[in-house]
Amino acid sequence: MELTGNWFAESVTPDWAVMLRLRSVLFSGSTAYQKVEVLDSSVFGRSLVLDGKTQSTESDEFIYHESLVHPAMMCHPDPKSVFIGGGGEGGTLREALAHRSVESVTMIDLDREVVELCRTHLPNHHQGSFDDPRLTLLHQEARAFLESPGDGFDVVILDLVDPLEEGTAYLLYTDEFYRIAKARMNPGGVLVTQSGPAGLSTHQECFTCIYHTLSHVFTHTAAAQVHIPAFQTLWGFTIASDGPLLQTQGDELEAAIARRINKELRHYDAETHRGMFALPKYLRQGMAEETRINRDDAPVFMV
Amino acid sequence: MELTGNWFAESVTPDWAVMLRLRSVLFSGSTAYQKVEVLDSSVFGRSLVLDGKTQSTESDEFIYHESLVHPAMMCHPDPKSVFIGGGGEGGTLREALAHRSVESVTMIDLDREVVELCRTHLPNHHQGSFDDPRLTLLHQEARAFLESPGDGFDVVILDLVDPLEEGTAYLLYTDEFYRIAKARMNPGGVLVTQSGPAGLSTHQECFTCIYHTLSHVFTHTAAAQVHIPAFQTLWGFTIASDGPLLQTQGDELEAAIARRINKELRHYDAETHRGMFALPKYLRQGMAEETRINRDDAPVFMV
Amino acid sequence: MELTGNWFAESVTPDWAVMLRLRSVLFSGSTAYQKVEVLDSSVFGRSLVLDGKTQSTESDEFIYHESLVHPAMMCHPDPKSVFIGGGGEGGTLREALAHRSVESVTMIDLDREVVELCRTHLPNHHQGSFDDPRLTLLHQEARAFLESPGDGFDVVILDLVDPLEEGTAYLLYTDEFYRIAKARMNPGGVLVTQSGPAGLSTHQECFTCIYHTLSHVFTHTAAAQVHIPAFQTLWGFTIASDGPLLQTQGDELEAAIARRINKELRHYDAETHRGMFALPKYLRQGMAEETRINRDDAPVFMV
Amino acid sequence: MELTGNWFAESVTPDWAVMLRLRSVLFSGSTAYQKVEVLDSSVFGRSLVLDGKTQSTESDEFIYHESLVHPAMMCHPDPKSVFIGGGGEGGTLREALAHRSVESVTMIDLDREVVELCRTHLPNHHQGSFDDPRLTLLHQEARAFLESPGDGFDVVILDLVDPLEEGTAYLLYTDEFYRIAKARMNPGGVLVTQSGPAGLSTHQECFTCIYHTLSHVFTHTAAAQVHIPAFQTLWGFTIASDGPLLQTQGDELEAAIARRINKELRHYDAETHRGMFALPKYLRQGMAEETRINRDDAPVFMV
Repeated sequence: MELTGNWFAESVTPDWAVMLRLRSVLFSGSTAYQKVEVLDSSVFGRSLVLDGKTQSTESDEFIYHESLVHPAMMCHPDPKSVFIGGGGEGGTLREALAHRSVESVTMIDLDREVVELCRTHLPNHHQGSFDDPRLTLLHQEARAFLESPGDGFDVVILDLVDPLEEGTAYLLYTDEFYRIAKARMNPGGVLVTQSGPAGLSTHQECFTCIYHTLSHVFTHTAAAQVHIPAFQTLWGFTIASDGPLLQTQGDELEAAIARRINKELRHYDAETHRGMFALPKYLRQGMAEETRINRDDAPVFMV
Repeated sequence: MELTGNWFAESVTPDWAVMLRLRSVLFSGSTAYQKVEVLDSSVFGRSLVLDGKTQSTESDEFIYHESLVHPAMMCHPDPKSVFIGGGGEGGTLREALAHRSVESVTMIDLDREVVELCRTHLPNHHQGSFDDPRLTLLHQEARAFLESPGDGFDVVILDLVDPLEEGTAYLLYTDEFYRIAKARMNPGGVLVTQSGPAGLSTHQECFTCIYHTLSHVFTHTAAAQVHIPAFQTLWGFTIASDGPLLQTQGDELEAAIARRINKELRHYDAETHRGMFALPKYLRQGMAEETRINRDDAPVFMV
Repeated sequence: MELTGNWFAESVTPDWAVMLRLRSVLFSGSTAYQKVEVLDSSVFGRSLVLDGKTQSTESDEFIYHESLVHPAMMCHPDPKSVFIGGGGEGGTLREALAHRSVESVTMIDLDREVVELCRTHLPNHHQGSFDDPRLTLLHQEARAFLESPGDGFDVVILDLVDPLEEGTAYLLYTDEFYRIAKARMNPGGVLVTQSGPAGLSTHQECFTCIYHTLSHVFTHTAAAQVHIPAFQTLWGFTIASDGPLLQTQGDELEAAIARRINKELRHYDAETHRGMFALPKYLRQGMAEETRINRDDAPVFMV
Repeated sequence: MELTGNWFAESVTPDWAVMLRLRSVLFSGSTAYQKVEVLDSSVFGRSLVLDGKTQSTESDEFIYHESLVHPAMMCHPDPKSVFIGGGGEGGTLREALAHRSVESVTMIDLDREVVELCRTHLPNHHQGSFDDPRLTLLHQEARAFLESPGDGFDVVILDLVDPLEEGTAYLLYTDEFYRIAKARMNPGGVLVTQSGPAGLSTHQECFTCIYHTLSHVFTHTAAAQVHIPAFQTLWGFTIASDGPLLQTQGDELEAAIARRINKELRHYDAETHRGMFALPKYLRQGMAEETRINRDDAPVFMV
């Protein structure tokens, strides 16, 4: 391959880097909270990069957002009110709004500027979802919001930046936070969180700890693993509820998807569901061996 | 991450490169057939690199080799004679020999020097399997060998370099070749081939064509997709047979694995099997839409 | 150093690359003649990149342009008419116009779009020189122009892209071309050309051949070597004339510079002049051993 | 250029990296004092890399070592006793021993293991000079050695690693150290030190400070600038003495070189000398404006 040209470089680990050829740099700057870039690479199209880490890309965000939203939504029999934490690109919002049952979405993304940059530069991500009248969009601390009294939610979707040592998002992955979220969930409510890398050598960074922490807070949990090309590795998602999870499969799930979601999905269906939740042996072993509970005063961080 | 230091760079596509920090270069040279390197990277340990492309690495070769060998072997009720094409590292051989039923393995790797380099530098790959008395190791053209008269095989395992334009391996992925291989297979015989990248943007390079070609030659086919970290993407495997495939699942498969394989596996079990063969929607669509038959005079090549 | 981020990569040789952190990509596209980028790097500021090769940068273009223009101009006792071939950034023009004696400059840069991009994006390069009433700016073939009848020039300055195999600029470095240029020069006229890399391992690519070819066409030649940081190596310049060269040095040269140039220079003065023209032993040896004459039908190319 | 392959990456500044294709890694490890690598790159051949920074390479070390040693030696009328600080590769030693007048060389390189690695892996650097009976090789602190009573030296050559914050070499570039060295120099003695990068944007890191400090300690100083390709920039050298410096030039210098040095030099001669010491305007300005004295308790560091 030809090296000459413009590149975006990102580390997967300190000894493993990825380089993507750049078509253009649409934005590069800093907000009050983080370093933000909107890039366009030949391989993945437009992407949002926060503090040097790719959040989602035009070409494969559908895998991420469908995997985050739909399994959790389908676990709930009739989700009317949805809470989204993070998700500034609008892709999570777009998928949640595709559910016919949804009457209201409360989305909190701390960083107003990021959301505005996404609205401007990532139209293929949000596809106009920010204009939906069912949306209430807030820019404040998600944890403080959930701690305050207010209406309950049927589904809580956490689409947050990774729990890095230098930020504050790690406080949205702890036992204490999950209890706060649970207190604002309606009976039978379902929570789902992106849970970090779940690959062979990376799942012990935070995935198994997040899973174990949720298992400690909720009666039922289920984990999935999906390959997100732009993340260079498998990615983990965890669903948690005090109600029963994942009741439907196969044809029954196909029928429910067709009935409840108002558009053609590109990634998620019953067979994709089966694949996502059938975890490889090394990952099940890692989950079984995990003993850490993620707590405010002893948090795990991603490397 | 710190850039200073020694790196191995590999292209995933012309616009997508991966860099791995090098611990050492154990061998770098050329044989009569190809450029060969044996490297040791901090992330993946020792690896074999042919013509600049990583073939397998110490840390994740178990995923590749277990995924290639065991589903195919388990599809056969009692595999006694195995043919391996390629597989110079010895990992495919190692997994095949773990089946108690196996009485003989004929392995053909054209490049004697590569095999010798692997025996010397990759002990954790082959784990002594080259010394097994059931092995007949040959260094000649696999296609010519299979075309010649000889004993039949119960399972044919094709662990070949990718079908690149600059090499000759592409002639081991064609309709004509598969008919040659089939003619040397015993009744009920099973063939499996590594089938190239099967990721979101890469599965149409050769995976769907290989799958479709095998479907054209054999009565039954089944495809799997596995994430191999060192390959930076999902990887495809295709099983083909004129007999029925994949009869067992779940507990029955677990029991058969325990009975038939003489060691603890690290990746493959019944749930891993379920995940591997439950393909995501985009991949099933790509397979359904594929119309190419890979032929000697009109071959597909990997980019 | 931190790898994460956006980079511009350029090859010095096929085995030697340079990476510069990008602040922004101001333009990236193609004209009728070449691939063009205007980049802004943290190290060198704004730069023009043609076909992947850096032409000049905001932070060090003064070294290049002063070294190209002033020694040649000072070799002529009273340069009134100047011809510039290439030089789209406007830096060569700026330096030529700083000579009080200059009454007219004819500048030919084939690629109108490049000149317009430079006028827009590289104000610190041209500093308004394109607006000088003494300038006639043309967009056509320099060689055809010089072959046509017309007024003579006192100084001919060739600020061309390197003689690469894929372009046509190599026809502006040949014996035949230099004879054409000479025919349009006034008596005592001086020609100068940028002459490619003149470093330890690179001076034989084209520098010594250009020098030798000019020595074949003109009575007197003189070569200089200057370190241009953004070129990652020493760079060569060759002056040629049928009249005597480089008459003045030291205090006399200082006085002439002060009298003839209407601004403070940043790089060129009498001591810099002495250093530029005192070539290291390996370079003088390379020049002495050179036997090639660069001809239209047997041109040298830069690697 | 082709990216695929093995590379050595080195930072010039935090935003400027160089990548060199590796042929092999001859040694990679750590001594008691530093990280050490002996590499072989296609561009520069074998090189010594300490703490990630290239010290010298097979292909261009002659420029560095001739520039460091000969101008200083030629400033002394009859150098008999030489002190070398650092210089583990043996190239400085080799050049000093080429002077017919030299009767003894005392070389101190703290890191015995580095010297042994160089003797083993860099034969083209030292060319057997470590076997010269005039050599006394010590492995101890150079500063402590010079502070102890002992015979005086005619020429002191400091070929030390750069003054980095993380090491201790910075204490060999201070006012205090230079006074210690001076106390061990014979009347008319000459000191020379490599003085770090002297390029357009790098000369203020440490070069001008070292120059100014030496000017503060010694009556006479002279600075030179040489392009070392493997250092990616111009490099500074400073000579200092209480006696007169640089008496000879031109033919007289040529004759002295021929008389006093017992081999053909590749870089240094009278014209190279003239070029090295004719510094460009920006560098002379930087030297003139420098006010810092480098002291033990307020040292400068290279970035």
